[in-house]
Amino acid sequence: MNTLNIGLVGYGFMGRTHSNAFHQAPRFFDLPMRPVLKAVCARNPERLRTFASNWGYESVETDWRALVDRKDIDLIDIASPNDTHHEIAIAAAKAGKMVMCEKPLGRDAKEAEAMVEAVESAGVANSVWYNYRRVPAVTMLKQLIDEGRLGRVFHYRAKFLQDWTISQDLPQGGEGLWRLDVKVAGSGVTGDLLAHCIDTALWLNGPITDVTAMTETFVKARKHNLTGRIEPVGIDDASAVLSRFANGSMATFEATRYARGHKALYTLEINGEHASAFWDLHDLHRIQYFDHADEGRVRGWRNIHVTDGDQPYMKRWWVPGLQIGYEHTFIHQFADFCCGIEDGTGAAPSFRDALATDYVTDAILASARSGKWEAVAS
Amino acid sequence: MNTLNIGLVGYGFMGRTHSNAFHQAPRFFDLPMRPVLKAVCARNPERLRTFASNWGYESVETDWRALVDRKDIDLIDIASPNDTHHEIAIAAAKAGKMVMCEKPLGRDAKEAEAMVEAVESAGVANSVWYNYRRVPAVTMLKQLIDEGRLGRVFHYRAKFLQDWTISQDLPQGGEGLWRLDVKVAGSGVTGDLLAHCIDTALWLNGPITDVTAMTETFVKARKHNLTGRIEPVGIDDASAVLSRFANGSMATFEATRYARGHKALYTLEINGEHASAFWDLHDLHRIQYFDHADEGRVRGWRNIHVTDGDQPYMKRWWVPGLQIGYEHTFIHQFADFCCGIEDGTGAAPSFRDALATDYVTDAILASARSGKWEAVAS
Amino acid sequence: MNTLNIGLVGYGFMGRTHSNAFHQAPRFFDLPMRPVLKAVCARNPERLRTFASNWGYESVETDWRALVDRKDIDLIDIASPNDTHHEIAIAAAKAGKMVMCEKPLGRDAKEAEAMVEAVESAGVANSVWYNYRRVPAVTMLKQLIDEGRLGRVFHYRAKFLQDWTISQDLPQGGEGLWRLDVKVAGSGVTGDLLAHCIDTALWLNGPITDVTAMTETFVKARKHNLTGRIEPVGIDDASAVLSRFANGSMATFEATRYARGHKALYTLEINGEHASAFWDLHDLHRIQYFDHADEGRVRGWRNIHVTDGDQPYMKRWWVPGLQIGYEHTFIHQFADFCCGIEDGTGAAPSFRDALATDYVTDAILASARSGKWEAVAS
Amino acid sequence: MNTLNIGLVGYGFMGRTHSNAFHQAPRFFDLPMRPVLKAVCARNPERLRTFASNWGYESVETDWRALVDRKDIDLIDIASPNDTHHEIAIAAAKAGKMVMCEKPLGRDAKEAEAMVEAVESAGVANSVWYNYRRVPAVTMLKQLIDEGRLGRVFHYRAKFLQDWTISQDLPQGGEGLWRLDVKVAGSGVTGDLLAHCIDTALWLNGPITDVTAMTETFVKARKHNLTGRIEPVGIDDASAVLSRFANGSMATFEATRYARGHKALYTLEINGEHASAFWDLHDLHRIQYFDHADEGRVRGWRNIHVTDGDQPYMKRWWVPGLQIGYEHTFIHQFADFCCGIEDGTGAAPSFRDALATDYVTDAILASARSGKWEAVAS
Repeated sequence: MNTLNIGLVGYGFMGRTHSNAFHQAPRFFDLPMRPVLKAVCARNPERLRTFASNWGYESVETDWRALVDRKDIDLIDIASPNDTHHEIAIAAAKAGKMVMCEKPLGRDAKEAEAMVEAVESAGVANSVWYNYRRVPAVTMLKQLIDEGRLGRVFHYRAKFLQDWTISQDLPQGGEGLWRLDVKVAGSGVTGDLLAHCIDTALWLNGPITDVTAMTETFVKARKHNLTGRIEPVGIDDASAVLSRFANGSMATFEATRYARGHKALYTLEINGEHASAFWDLHDLHRIQYFDHADEGRVRGWRNIHVTDGDQPYMKRWWVPGLQIGYEHTFIHQFADFCCGIEDGTGAAPSFRDALATDYVTDAILASARSGKWEAVAS
Repeated sequence: MNTLNIGLVGYGFMGRTHSNAFHQAPRFFDLPMRPVLKAVCARNPERLRTFASNWGYESVETDWRALVDRKDIDLIDIASPNDTHHEIAIAAAKAGKMVMCEKPLGRDAKEAEAMVEAVESAGVANSVWYNYRRVPAVTMLKQLIDEGRLGRVFHYRAKFLQDWTISQDLPQGGEGLWRLDVKVAGSGVTGDLLAHCIDTALWLNGPITDVTAMTETFVKARKHNLTGRIEPVGIDDASAVLSRFANGSMATFEATRYARGHKALYTLEINGEHASAFWDLHDLHRIQYFDHADEGRVRGWRNIHVTDGDQPYMKRWWVPGLQIGYEHTFIHQFADFCCGIEDGTGAAPSFRDALATDYVTDAILASARSGKWEAVAS
Repeated sequence: MNTLNIGLVGYGFMGRTHSNAFHQAPRFFDLPMRPVLKAVCARNPERLRTFASNWGYESVETDWRALVDRKDIDLIDIASPNDTHHEIAIAAAKAGKMVMCEKPLGRDAKEAEAMVEAVESAGVANSVWYNYRRVPAVTMLKQLIDEGRLGRVFHYRAKFLQDWTISQDLPQGGEGLWRLDVKVAGSGVTGDLLAHCIDTALWLNGPITDVTAMTETFVKARKHNLTGRIEPVGIDDASAVLSRFANGSMATFEATRYARGHKALYTLEINGEHASAFWDLHDLHRIQYFDHADEGRVRGWRNIHVTDGDQPYMKRWWVPGLQIGYEHTFIHQFADFCCGIEDGTGAAPSFRDALATDYVTDAILASARSGKWEAVAS
Repeated sequence: MNTLNIGLVGYGFMGRTHSNAFHQAPRFFDLPMRPVLKAVCARNPERLRTFASNWGYESVETDWRALVDRKDIDLIDIASPNDTHHEIAIAAAKAGKMVMCEKPLGRDAKEAEAMVEAVESAGVANSVWYNYRRVPAVTMLKQLIDEGRLGRVFHYRAKFLQDWTISQDLPQGGEGLWRLDVKVAGSGVTGDLLAHCIDTALWLNGPITDVTAMTETFVKARKHNLTGRIEPVGIDDASAVLSRFANGSMATFEATRYARGHKALYTLEINGEHASAFWDLHDLHRIQYFDHADEGRVRGWRNIHVTDGDQPYMKRWWVPGLQIGYEHTFIHQFADFCCGIEDGTGAAPSFRDALATDYVTDAILASARSGKWEAVAS
């Protein structure tokens, strides 16, 4: 069996989820190639060695350029902060490597456009880790929609609510907190949380044409971990959106880190003429499904425990009733990517697919500034 | 339109629920007769007058025998403590009155047998207020079972959990607390809470043939309100039962007033070969229904909000999505009773139906004493 | 005890809920006066007599002007379609009657302003039936907010989702369907469903200053019941809103009659620095409450079954665990109104309070037309 | 770092969960030794090689005696059917190996007693895979109980409901279906599902002293996969139990494979004087917790999403709000086992702990035969 030699950039939270996927995918899925954890790259040598040892990487690099230059690497996987995606991905593509990249693709659509151009020019396989597409319940919802079960869609609504930045004492910037530093992250919850909502929405319900939005920064200044000074907060703490889809349906979106009591409450709902569905990340192995074709007297939302062998991905895991968790979404995506290389179709979302999300989040941020409806580029 | 002249005995909690039913039933249902709140009877004249005035009773009596003797009364409704049911019901039947009686029918089956004999000899309409049969969700479950949707039944399980007697400082006996006085109540949770579970079970799933049971009295002595002395507690604080039904299914039952956190959690579930259903008093307007005939991939428990016009009783109330509450079960039962008089079929559960529950609770208490399986009389 | 002589206009759905409240309030609450159902007014004499008989009205009128002129009426209660509110309320106020009016107050703020002017000039007690304020769980949430338990509020979100107009075959106009006729209703879901969300939001979270909104009419033409012709649909079928509150918090609102699977799903959530709460009309007797002061390890959303005697209104009803339903909200409002007359404070929401909701819904409809943020009048 | 050389017996469902734990534990936990997947043993050589290759075992054996004899193995892990546990475990202990064994320990207490004797005589580390103790929510419940938060316990109730054997066409015996063959399994749901309930109950609530029980075999005969003939079914399809604990509390237990609609619904609830808790395997990352010390008006069951770093095991995984799944319970148990070797305390449940469960299940089966209360051996 061929090998797929992987070079990872970044050893933070996402470095762990990706590395775990590289190990687990071949044990639970029939992959057409054998992943090899060839090298991991980060700046702190001591922590890097610990990470490499723990996750079984064969070697380490402290400069991503060196990693990209290595001949024994087939795939560059980018799990470092947002401000690094652009440069690394383009260099990797130019070096003829396949590229997987954490979301969002770029800090804005301009960066993302260049990245798309790079991978498409190079003709290399590419994918962005919008992992929630691979929650079995969400994948099943996509199947149900594609089968035409919902009929004409009227409404889409999604939100991603967290509460971890409410304290004014939380600093910004530096490791673990770069998501609060607008220079590194590009934006706040819009590019971080809302981007997940948008990616799934585009996948399930097609293009978004127009948006109007508001954002808010509740805590205006925080100590910056890198400078030690109190500095203005440049990110959006919360973001709320109205939008229209090309299929005539309308949507509300919201993301925040100020919703006390919610840890990572990503919920989505879609209402069609014939059926509706609801999903909630906090119980990701369930989907609520309403089918109007059910006999009226006993019609109700079906609470589906997505753990059966005939439901997406689940025959690879345990037995009905036994749930999987968060990290499995990365395993599924990596397994699909490997199969996609083999059969030539690639693994969605591609860089181009992810660019569409950047167009929407750019329009959202533009609308929040202009106070007007903004058309989404495409 | 003919009138139905009602004489109520008792002005406690159940006196209120019944009186409310007498007023509300004719406004929401097409009754074949007009209920008239003719008289109410209780011992404390001052409180009696207040109650009569509040609920619009035309007159009062302080001796139930006087009430029973009145020529202008058609129906005696018994809402007084358990130890009074027997004597009043028999006298009322002998006087040719229709009789409605709070549950349990007798403090034991022996009392209940005499009551059945009395109403059947007299040929008077009769009914026992096992009100939970008239929760629309429960009534609909009965319909689904009668339509054969469940197939062969394997399991039944019900419990009624409360927590209001955990404190050792709670006294026993006297108004509002006679349920803790075994002489008045006959038993503890077995006759009070478990009797509801049994009545519904017999109605939905047919006769129970054998039981084995345990009871427990967690607080052994409490101050008695009537004597002022600490006295042994004679009631069962908790009761748990295994049983077999005539249809071959098996059951677990449990009732307690020591389940911290539960106010009145009466839940029941029935598992059949083809379908299952679950109901919960705390959200009485919902039923959970699982139909194995649903397509496998989208099979799940349907959460049915029983508020539509094609669901039992609900076309009489509001519009879909708007729930009704506890007292409506009494309104429904009284409306059914009035219609039952008219068409000659009576209103279930009759005294004879309720006697069956007393046979089961007697067997449960006997098994708790004997430590053996006990056959249920019939 | 003094009497309160009531004259009702309208015998539709709301005529029933109000009439029920007039009967039930004095039985369950200690009112300072005795309500008398003096007269009911509507145009169809036959149905009017049936209604009057069923609900115990002493007399009938077929012209509301005659009702308003009667000397034996203290309170005019308006339960007729929206296009009648304005004229009747002003005439009633001029005649010195107290006025209760179904929501929305006017079809637009201009009508509502005239109504406020009329009752305030006349100095008559007045109230608008935004009944959901009197759901015990919602009232309790108001108490918790007033006690300062939430701290600084960041987010408010509410939606009211129905699905009963999805079919294109449903006609517009005429009895039971006037809500689809823009001339009668004034607007579609914005004035009907969203107005409930706005009223509660203003009550719980203070003034809304700015909104941006979109509306949609999914079915563009329907047969009109009064003309028999296919006519354009003038109402909004769906409405979605972003808004800012004076307290610095932000909100999303949504209402629709095209959310397949939802009957009357009015939900609201408020997120504060210290605590959050969530409520859902489909289980109106519950509130979800999250208190960040709870010890971290065992912190979670508390599922509160609002049926205890120390929770709003509930000591008037049954015992813990036994839920009440939809119609009780009207009973509570009428009881509060009677007490408000007595102590001079009136019963919120007053006409002036309800005008504030009309200002918001006007701004929403204006924004949906203009595509811009609109300031809310006050 | 020292190595722990593992020899696994069995490559079925449990062989996969254990092998996964051996790989994952060292990546997520700081283990005092490095697990090495030295050898796997099973009878079918072809499938064995595939399994060994997939899971990275260094070698294979087709005779467990050869495995036990190998000098390069430190730990024998038994994941083969129940009828093999006894002989392998005793041989392994005699060979001085540490032993981990799937549950139930023996097919009956007699077998289990010999196994306990063997490991204790040999002085080897031992543990039984009652994995549900290591669900973070369940572990946290154990902590809360140990901290005295529940006070005096009144009630315990647990059930494990499945529906996968309802069809009469399902055969018994052979691979994947040996759980229906009484000779191999020892019993039906009592030793399979109910044993999980009992193990957790003993851990959380202490010794069970007496039981009364009933069992049922709904499908009396099934085709046997090994003989090809219709043979009587010897297992119990369903089991229901009442019991008393040494601490004075009472319990109900139930297990079945005939509860239509339930896949693997293991639920447990414990009611104490001060607090109660509920857990459900279908959403294993949650616990419902009721604390009576909460202020009355806002008291409710707390829905705790057990995914925070201060909750058991969770700091090893992702971030708050991101759930883990079924297989993690095995990872946790193996990590604890490794640490237990190091610090000398071992990893509960030991063989002796698991023997206690066999005593209870033996008493349950005896009571089902005798129709009497049976004392539990100890």
